[in-house]
Amino acid sequence: MQDKKMLPKKADNISDWYLSLIERADLADYGPAKGTIVIKPYGYALWENAVHILDSWFKEAGIQNAYFPLLIPYSLLERETSHIQGFSPELAVVTHAGGKELAEPLVVRPTSETVMYEMFSKWIGSHRDLPLKINQWCNVVRWELRTFPFIRTCEFLWQEGHTAHETEEEAMEMVLQALDWYKKFYEEVFAISPYIGEKSGSERFAGAKRTFSIELVMPDGKALQGATSHYLGQNFAKPFNIQFSDRQNKLQYVHQTSWGLSTRALGGLIMTHGDDNGLILPPRIAPYQVIIITINSKDQQTAAKLRAYVRTIEDQLAKEDIRITTDSDNDKTLGYRMNEAEIKGIPVRIVVGLNEYDEKYVTLSRRDKLEEKQKVKLNGLGEYVRDVLEDIQGSLLEKSEKMKQNLTVDVNNFDEFKRVMQEERKFIRAYWDESEVTEKTIKEKTKATTRVVELEHISDTDEGPCVYTGNKARRKWLFAQAY
Amino acid sequence: MQDKKMLPKKADNISDWYLSLIERADLADYGPAKGTIVIKPYGYALWENAVHILDSWFKEAGIQNAYFPLLIPYSLLERETSHIQGFSPELAVVTHAGGKELAEPLVVRPTSETVMYEMFSKWIGSHRDLPLKINQWCNVVRWELRTFPFIRTCEFLWQEGHTAHETEEEAMEMVLQALDWYKKFYEEVFAISPYIGEKSGSERFAGAKRTFSIELVMPDGKALQGATSHYLGQNFAKPFNIQFSDRQNKLQYVHQTSWGLSTRALGGLIMTHGDDNGLILPPRIAPYQVIIITINSKDQQTAAKLRAYVRTIEDQLAKEDIRITTDSDNDKTLGYRMNEAEIKGIPVRIVVGLNEYDEKYVTLSRRDKLEEKQKVKLNGLGEYVRDVLEDIQGSLLEKSEKMKQNLTVDVNNFDEFKRVMQEERKFIRAYWDESEVTEKTIKEKTKATTRVVELEHISDTDEGPCVYTGNKARRKWLFAQAY
Repeated sequence: MQDKKMLPKKADNISDWYLSLIERADLADYGPAKGTIVIKPYGYALWENAVHILDSWFKEAGIQNAYFPLLIPYSLLERETSHIQGFSPELAVVTHAGGKELAEPLVVRPTSETVMYEMFSKWIGSHRDLPLKINQWCNVVRWELRTFPFIRTCEFLWQEGHTAHETEEEAMEMVLQALDWYKKFYEEVFAISPYIGEKSGSERFAGAKRTFSIELVMPDGKALQGATSHYLGQNFAKPFNIQFSDRQNKLQYVHQTSWGLSTRALGGLIMTHGDDNGLILPPRIAPYQVIIITINSKDQQTAAKLRAYVRTIEDQLAKEDIRITTDSDNDKTLGYRMNEAEIKGIPVRIVVGLNEYDEKYVTLSRRDKLEEKQKVKLNGLGEYVRDVLEDIQGSLLEKSEKMKQNLTVDVNNFDEFKRVMQEERKFIRAYWDESEVTEKTIKEKTKATTRVVELEHISDTDEGPCVYTGNKARRKWLFAQAY
Repeated sequence: MQDKKMLPKKADNISDWYLSLIERADLADYGPAKGTIVIKPYGYALWENAVHILDSWFKEAGIQNAYFPLLIPYSLLERETSHIQGFSPELAVVTHAGGKELAEPLVVRPTSETVMYEMFSKWIGSHRDLPLKINQWCNVVRWELRTFPFIRTCEFLWQEGHTAHETEEEAMEMVLQALDWYKKFYEEVFAISPYIGEKSGSERFAGAKRTFSIELVMPDGKALQGATSHYLGQNFAKPFNIQFSDRQNKLQYVHQTSWGLSTRALGGLIMTHGDDNGLILPPRIAPYQVIIITINSKDQQTAAKLRAYVRTIEDQLAKEDIRITTDSDNDKTLGYRMNEAEIKGIPVRIVVGLNEYDEKYVTLSRRDKLEEKQKVKLNGLGEYVRDVLEDIQGSLLEKSEKMKQNLTVDVNNFDEFKRVMQEERKFIRAYWDESEVTEKTIKEKTKATTRVVELEHISDTDEGPCVYTGNKARRKWLFAQAY
């Protein structure tokens, strides 16, 4: 186990680095069926923490969890025309079950709008049944064979929120509320500073009137869609006949939203913060925030002293609700064990030996500043570590913010646009005339797609010339090559 | 909404009562595809509480959660012969995906032994990798069209624990540890007193060497399998080639276990405790342990007083970490609202009006003793309610224990066996010669199957005559008709 290979350099080839890191840090493995992955315990612990935090925010806001069937009759999926058009190339279809061919094939859910809204139409009758605010934590399947763990997989885990409202205003409030949760989640938990905005018509969710999204700037200048929030209008309400009698006793169609965040987010987390030594986990999401490592010792008495000292340290940290793990494995070298802690991205490492024991201090180092070692007194250690963890959380976010700025450039002409995409690969902010033809042409020539018009630019009217056509354009958009 | 129909009597037709209750208490609904159900928020909240409790026990014992793929290549499922024989009639099969016919069909997991053990064989190399203790919370699909919500559905939610060990002893310890968690869960959380024992050869899990099970006695005398724990021996280790080099550096096959509890448990919970007025939920699993209902009042000043008083009560209860909900909906009658609280099975109901406000007390009643109303002083209310909740929890378990005793009878001859099964429908404890032919004949004649030999009787040697053949039999078994 000592000879596990080093990671490739992140700067040399980020894909190779990412794939090696996933393996070395025990985050995931490939499943037996093509396109599938296994989320291993250390990777799953990240997801569990994410679920726990988001779920508590949803519940505080009165969102109720429920569970809808995995298998959806094909005809139900066809009911909203653009929805089936968008999803049909990605569907996995059950044609046989219980030893027989099915009369109607069943689709393994790629998302749950159709199956949920079929139920909503049964459940909603009056304005007193509204708003209906449902969330589901589940697995979905979208056929995808160019597997890239977490980022592109046949099956992924996610939450999908689905709400129905009396008015468009109320629905739009919900759309923005969900977007705000995702922003807060990325910034405050994942320590990633994202772009937030609205998608263009061609990049909209299949069936939505408006799609808002969280766009993450990856270190290679590519975009990773981090979460989406859709205003569905009455696009589904009409084919699914979700009507309610309003306060004037008139029948109306509901206004709907849906919004989701998936295990894909973990891909963004890993890629953003990791370095050549392994993962770097923001403390708020880290399964273990601190690892305590004892130096190797064959001497019984020393080992006993160190064990007792570790317990004292654990008590100090437990008082501050710090998640800890301890490594006292004398069968592996200290170097190997320190290396493992680095690869796993544990935010704070505490090493103790006889010196530390005798003088009642610990040797502490931060995963994000490996070169610095600190002597910290046992007395007050819990509070000190709590502060260090907060500091790491903050400085990772700052670093991400800087990376975002460095990897974004405002561009006025298409030659420069092409040059930046080809030579530097960054996010580009540029005027676009909002024509689909222009969008498509830019994509063909540069592989860059429109990501979003940022929230703060949505209402802009300061016209400028489109970066490609020179036509009058109302707003600047973000462009990038996407994962 | 006031004219929702009454429940059928539980004693008249328990199936009708059960189905009506599922609907009236908003626990579940039927999904669009045959055989599927939707778990509605109130039903899902029960599952979430169950997950939370079991998951904390598993984690304390070092079980790690992970996530394995939903879709399994058919060939993998065939690798263990009796496994595929057992499951093949129940499989849902994906034959088309991404718009194409698949070269090899993929099975929607009916359970995850095969996909997990394919990975275990990659992950395990040495005794240092053992024990490997993995758990997964997920959905599984087993084709079943005679839908009975929670109890028989095409898809259900569950946890499946899978462990690999160096020795048979260690694996058997794990099997019994899991069984013990399930026992504790049913007794202490669901307030259900189960039978616990080992299954006969014909009732064993497909691929297991030994299957242990939790058997619940339903009020109609039928059995509901509440959870199972399997010793797999090396039955999977060999075809999946899960080998490790032992402490003497010799290659050995691992010894394995798997164990699971599903949303089926909710069916047992509902059926055991509910009565003609609705659900009765044990406090430890109840989404809300207390409902506070204010009497109707059109008078603004009175309403304001009651609102303030409710807040005081909420504070008292919150101090004791009691889960509460409040109903101050003046648009519905007090009777209707009290009725709804009963149907939802909320353990404690607190009603407050002006009298209560003026004299600083509440009117409290227990869901399990509706006829008794108590005046309870505001001062010390939290502690009082905490005690009442504990008392309800205990007395529901006691009731379940009595029901189990009343619905079990020891029988010595087959005429009596047939009479009891036909006229009374109970659990029968009887000597059985442990021949499969006898077991099959008894089933044909009485619809009763062997449930388990109870743990305390497994090692019995006090021979007696088999209830059917009269042959020498070593142990008494429990027989019942099963859900």
